[in-house]
Amino acid sequence: MKDVVASSGSMIVISNRLPFVLQRNKDGQLVRKASAGGLVTAVAPVVINGNGFWVGWPGLHLENPDEPMPESDPDDITPTAGLKSNKVIPVQIDPKVFDSYYNGCCNATFWPLFHSMPDRASFKGEHWKNYVTANKEFAECTLKALRQLPKNAADVPLIWVHDYHLMLAANWIRQFSEDENIPCKLGFFLHIPFPPWDIFRLFPWSDEILQGMLACDMVGFHITDYCLNFVDCCQRNLGCRVDRKNLLVEHGGRSVRVRPLPIGIPFERFVELAEKAPKVISTNQKIVLGVDRLDYTKGLVHRLLAFEKLLEKHPEHLEKVSLLQVAVPSRTDVKEYQELKEEMDQLVGRINGRFTTPNWSPIRYIYGCISQDELAAFYRDSAVGLVTPLRDGMNLVAKEFVACQINIPPGVLIVSPFAGAGETMHEALICNPYEIDDASEVIHRALTMPEDERILRMNYLRRREKLNDVNYWTKSFLSAMGSLQTQEDYDDIGSVAMPAVTLDDFDEYLAKYIGNTLKLALLLDYDGTLAPIAPHPDLAIIPSETKKVLERLSNLSDVYIAIVSGRNVDNVKEMVGIEGITYAGNHGLEILHPDGTRFVHPMPTEFHTKVAELMRQLQETVCRDGAWVENKGALLTFHFRETPHHLRANLEEQARKMIEDAGFTVGKAHCAIEAKPPVQWNKGRASIYILRTAFGVDWSERIRIIYVGDDATDEDAMTALKGMAATFRVTSSHIIKTSAERRLPSTDSVLTMLRWVERHLSRRKPSLDPNSYRRNSLAKAASSAVQIEMSMHVPSASNSPPSPTKSSKTLVPPPESNNISH
Amino acid sequence: MKDVVASSGSMIVISNRLPFVLQRNKDGQLVRKASAGGLVTAVAPVVINGNGFWVGWPGLHLENPDEPMPESDPDDITPTAGLKSNKVIPVQIDPKVFDSYYNGCCNATFWPLFHSMPDRASFKGEHWKNYVTANKEFAECTLKALRQLPKNAADVPLIWVHDYHLMLAANWIRQFSEDENIPCKLGFFLHIPFPPWDIFRLFPWSDEILQGMLACDMVGFHITDYCLNFVDCCQRNLGCRVDRKNLLVEHGGRSVRVRPLPIGIPFERFVELAEKAPKVISTNQKIVLGVDRLDYTKGLVHRLLAFEKLLEKHPEHLEKVSLLQVAVPSRTDVKEYQELKEEMDQLVGRINGRFTTPNWSPIRYIYGCISQDELAAFYRDSAVGLVTPLRDGMNLVAKEFVACQINIPPGVLIVSPFAGAGETMHEALICNPYEIDDASEVIHRALTMPEDERILRMNYLRRREKLNDVNYWTKSFLSAMGSLQTQEDYDDIGSVAMPAVTLDDFDEYLAKYIGNTLKLALLLDYDGTLAPIAPHPDLAIIPSETKKVLERLSNLSDVYIAIVSGRNVDNVKEMVGIEGITYAGNHGLEILHPDGTRFVHPMPTEFHTKVAELMRQLQETVCRDGAWVENKGALLTFHFRETPHHLRANLEEQARKMIEDAGFTVGKAHCAIEAKPPVQWNKGRASIYILRTAFGVDWSERIRIIYVGDDATDEDAMTALKGMAATFRVTSSHIIKTSAERRLPSTDSVLTMLRWVERHLSRRKPSLDPNSYRRNSLAKAASSAVQIEMSMHVPSASNSPPSPTKSSKTLVPPPESNNISH
Repeated sequence: MKDVVASSGSMIVISNRLPFVLQRNKDGQLVRKASAGGLVTAVAPVVINGNGFWVGWPGLHLENPDEPMPESDPDDITPTAGLKSNKVIPVQIDPKVFDSYYNGCCNATFWPLFHSMPDRASFKGEHWKNYVTANKEFAECTLKALRQLPKNAADVPLIWVHDYHLMLAANWIRQFSEDENIPCKLGFFLHIPFPPWDIFRLFPWSDEILQGMLACDMVGFHITDYCLNFVDCCQRNLGCRVDRKNLLVEHGGRSVRVRPLPIGIPFERFVELAEKAPKVISTNQKIVLGVDRLDYTKGLVHRLLAFEKLLEKHPEHLEKVSLLQVAVPSRTDVKEYQELKEEMDQLVGRINGRFTTPNWSPIRYIYGCISQDELAAFYRDSAVGLVTPLRDGMNLVAKEFVACQINIPPGVLIVSPFAGAGETMHEALICNPYEIDDASEVIHRALTMPEDERILRMNYLRRREKLNDVNYWTKSFLSAMGSLQTQEDYDDIGSVAMPAVTLDDFDEYLAKYIGNTLKLALLLDYDGTLAPIAPHPDLAIIPSETKKVLERLSNLSDVYIAIVSGRNVDNVKEMVGIEGITYAGNHGLEILHPDGTRFVHPMPTEFHTKVAELMRQLQETVCRDGAWVENKGALLTFHFRETPHHLRANLEEQARKMIEDAGFTVGKAHCAIEAKPPVQWNKGRASIYILRTAFGVDWSERIRIIYVGDDATDEDAMTALKGMAATFRVTSSHIIKTSAERRLPSTDSVLTMLRWVERHLSRRKPSLDPNSYRRNSLAKAASSAVQIEMSMHVPSASNSPPSPTKSSKTLVPPPESNNISH
Repeated sequence: MKDVVASSGSMIVISNRLPFVLQRNKDGQLVRKASAGGLVTAVAPVVINGNGFWVGWPGLHLENPDEPMPESDPDDITPTAGLKSNKVIPVQIDPKVFDSYYNGCCNATFWPLFHSMPDRASFKGEHWKNYVTANKEFAECTLKALRQLPKNAADVPLIWVHDYHLMLAANWIRQFSEDENIPCKLGFFLHIPFPPWDIFRLFPWSDEILQGMLACDMVGFHITDYCLNFVDCCQRNLGCRVDRKNLLVEHGGRSVRVRPLPIGIPFERFVELAEKAPKVISTNQKIVLGVDRLDYTKGLVHRLLAFEKLLEKHPEHLEKVSLLQVAVPSRTDVKEYQELKEEMDQLVGRINGRFTTPNWSPIRYIYGCISQDELAAFYRDSAVGLVTPLRDGMNLVAKEFVACQINIPPGVLIVSPFAGAGETMHEALICNPYEIDDASEVIHRALTMPEDERILRMNYLRRREKLNDVNYWTKSFLSAMGSLQTQEDYDDIGSVAMPAVTLDDFDEYLAKYIGNTLKLALLLDYDGTLAPIAPHPDLAIIPSETKKVLERLSNLSDVYIAIVSGRNVDNVKEMVGIEGITYAGNHGLEILHPDGTRFVHPMPTEFHTKVAELMRQLQETVCRDGAWVENKGALLTFHFRETPHHLRANLEEQARKMIEDAGFTVGKAHCAIEAKPPVQWNKGRASIYILRTAFGVDWSERIRIIYVGDDATDEDAMTALKGMAATFRVTSSHIIKTSAERRLPSTDSVLTMLRWVERHLSRRKPSLDPNSYRRNSLAKAASSAVQIEMSMHVPSASNSPPSPTKSSKTLVPPPESNNISH
């Protein structure tokens, strides 16, 4: 009984290639050339039945981008025949960009890198740029499709993004659909392996890749190992909270599901092919069969050497066994592939030369494409299927071989453990292709395996593949998305959300910071970190529970607390309302020590009048549609969080220009931009100043530090404290790049972290250190440290350091000078 | 103030090379050539002060293995001068074996593989064999040293095994020291990176490597990332229980500590060198310095390209900056290294040709060795230290550069994130060497960095390296071993043991087996699994708590229990004493179903008399010194667990020969060997027979299975059930290879696992399945399945399958025939 798979909402598939190839006939008209791939067979009906779309590159570059797509040929009986021309969105990309995106980034970088062969990967900024451009183009085409779908709250459309060509597209699709308020569900499936962190992180833009994938609601891989690699990368590269047991990643305030979804083949179709295909191999020799694209991941050279070793060690197979190796030409214009072909040609020649007899050649090497019929006959009539890639996402040849093994007694399948198929097809013989000697023994064992064992193994293999065919895979995907039409009949979709942050979440990461006798410095941003973001700063109130925990912590002798905020310092002190701790305002331009001493970073004199002038200008021109200016003394903040979404960009741009023209530096904050005097000072420098003032010049050896912030301005501090502090970025956005080591989803989770600190410190045995740090000694420490500070080297203004860049860590020089006022 | 590091017991160091090179002078006498490496400087005094030994290859092959070692030269002032000749154990290895071990396995396999460059690694069985031989030789030499140490219970000697050359040696050292009852502590340190699992497992003998390292009490790596990779491999390759938070691995009933111990340099020595070294670079140009062995891991080609890009994008540096690249020749007889040299030569020529002016060449390329003085001058007088390996365990050049930066203002260090140094030297500029464009920008940033920022960064870097110098590293190692003489003054050695197995340990692994509505089949061995091993089988009694849990489980409708033992079936039933479950005796040759039906695997008729005859022979000849024979009906077991250790091998060998001569198959069991009739039947086949009989031919889709065993005979079942069952091997040995997915340390932990199952099942909602499996239906199921069984294909005896090999999974054919008796 054939399943009909259906999704509950319309499905839009986005893949590098359309499910057919576009060609021009001799009249110059576009025609479709149908494809018969298993994936297309399984997925096209879901798209067609749900009245969805397929977005992809059509296979040729169109001069006229509006040239209509052709309908299918009336004789076309493939599953895509029902895909109407208006349901196909061809992606048009400039040929040069496409070449760099496809041949450069996809094939010369991601292909070898994701197959854990970093030596073969090239990393070029130019290719990456074009990859970004191409992905954005795919996303825009997807949006076109999304707009055409009927709005129906019950059936949210499902967007299925395919493979390593499109790892960024979901970013923009999510953003566009949110901007235009068209709900959709996003799923991703990677058809190749996902590498371990040590390999993945070699890619200079690895963070962006992860964030692009995490823009989806579900990310699917062939096997659990790849899922675990991905989850590990999310934790170690991005600092996301993850749940390895339930395979969840928290990102942008969402729980992204990660799922193993091993792909299958159209099993019954291969059985039919095998039943019908005429016999093409006429020989009494046993055939060992290999079928592969000629690619360096496939281990073809190793395979030939193993076969040579077999003939050497087990001469009883001479003239009785042949290796039939089909190598399908691939990327023939790439030097690496040309070299591989030369190596194969030479090796086949050498081995044949060594063993050939008048009536037998050990290797029959077909370099070219063969028809489906022929292939099925090969599969059916071979004694051994040899599938030994060095690394392979799944490998469908192993599954097709099994499907076509309809003869009794059947043959034997040999699979590499480094293919996805090796992880799932347990009854195959497993063979490490790197170990030529052992590989030859495994082939020998396959050739001499008793009939009954062959039958038993093949029965199990066939039963599993029949059950888990490509339709099952499509259903599994829909199920993992919660979009299967008959969800109740199917597997439970399982737990789909990360549990709320608990105390346990901090055990592993924070224990090393606190698990000793050093003092702890807590540096905390205010808005969005301690207090939830509110429409107006006055409404951003610290939750009473957070305040209580902070108060208790501030009374511990071995805890030092500083609040580092973009507000002016008196305002932030008033909002927090705890005595005896340090407050830094205006991103550290003003610092209020617990003993009442106050540090104010000097503003160049000429800016005193400029501030008032800029304030007036902003108020007159851009304070409309809910936008307003806040005067923080040392800087101005232009807020537009109450401005309607579509008006913001324009207002922000105007304000930005005005600020820059006035000679101020523009800083980005949450729904706001800031005008700062052009001094080299930021939360990073301020944090180090605060710590040095409180603990002396050797502060970094005397204390442990936790820094928490939610704002772009906090990044300066996270960068400056790298390696010295536990750093958290509070964020619910999915495309934020951060120097913080960990991410937290909300102010609630900051409270949980503070509770963890409190609980952990209270378990510490009371400090016996006679120099134990107490509140009363703080004033003394502060003022003596200031003395040190003032005698330090003061750089000239013209010699100021550049702002930190992505790949570096900033340590700040001492401030230009100090103003101490009481 | 200089620390004197001392260990509490004598230290034996074992490293590939001795701490000096042995040469022949013109008179043909052996002399020492002193070495000045940082490691030797730090470790030699500990060995000398503790009156310990150094075991290593002397650098040349001695014709006469007993030729005495030379004393040090009277002028020798290096730290090894105090190492007396009788404290040096030179390892003698056949030159061919040594070449294959060192150049083959170590340098052509482990070096590229552990640097995550699998493409460059070769995997040859022959090299591996020689690696094993060489490691055994090192172990034997270590034992010689160990025997010479005075026995002192208070100060247990400490054996420190170094690096990837000696990853197996600890295996035999542990075994020998246990055999000879000489207690010792074993520590290992790896000086190169440890790769992620996906890379590590490519090595065909990866299990053996892990077990070799786990034979130590502590395994050290440079950084936490390598520790985590190692722990992950132990869990995924060996199935060990691990504690990622405390970095512990349970193996062979011991908790092995895994520790990050970042190596340092003799900081003060480099400062002195830098203070004294005369100026050698006389130029006004800023020098960007690179110092590396000419090795493909060092990223030299990428570095030259980045420097070229710098000159291209920032022409202001033309004639102002030079790259001084020192490339130390390495492995010059290896083709790959020759090719790299050619590529470098060509690239240097091309870039110089492009930019050189009459008074300036951009690249000064020194291919050769330079003196320590010269090196220190280079370090001191360079503006930028460029340390950009593609992968590097630690990289000491980065640390030496920092130590020698004594000029004010100092230069800038650039480090790759893929070196251990990149993980610990936070104030360096970090540069991904793969991204040429970005790398050139980082160099630019370093060249234009303001003085004050340079001072601040370099101060931090120098302070850390001064503190964490190579003496500190030695102390950290001793501390991690619990062997520091003044342990109380030092860091706590932390938690050193895995907590006992708890219910939580099974959550992740077992939940997927039980977390659904399928029935559960529990297949359990008896001796060593349910009941602790005892001196005599009659004393191996099931703990009452284990029995109670099993009884309760046997009453659940969705649990099926079979005990699969090597005892005879009636005996095992009596020992367990639970009604209504299945018992298999004699490794499955006899099966007693819950309804009383009994299956007996037919023994070839001629063996009935042979059994009695063999029994008599064994009793007459080898039943002495506590050894005895047990008649189990279908087989005989020869027990020698009460025989003194040193007599066992001989007795076992005699018995083995007798059994084989009688035409029986020898099976290995716990302190016993078994004489089995030569039928193709084992616990694997028996398990599948039991499951098929109880659940029908589609059993594998209807049930979940847990298999637990402690014996070599259980491996057949674990292999046969691979992919279908959760499998546990109970073992406290450290060199057992298993097909089980997980290991358990003891019978206690099996009880905990059974408790987990009970708790988990009782949480399941009651099954609503009308076909719910009940005890009463079992008899029916069993007998009807037997009908199916009997009609199946019966293979001829001559066609019997070979026994399973290491890398394959066995599925068993149906039994030759069935005897049903009541």
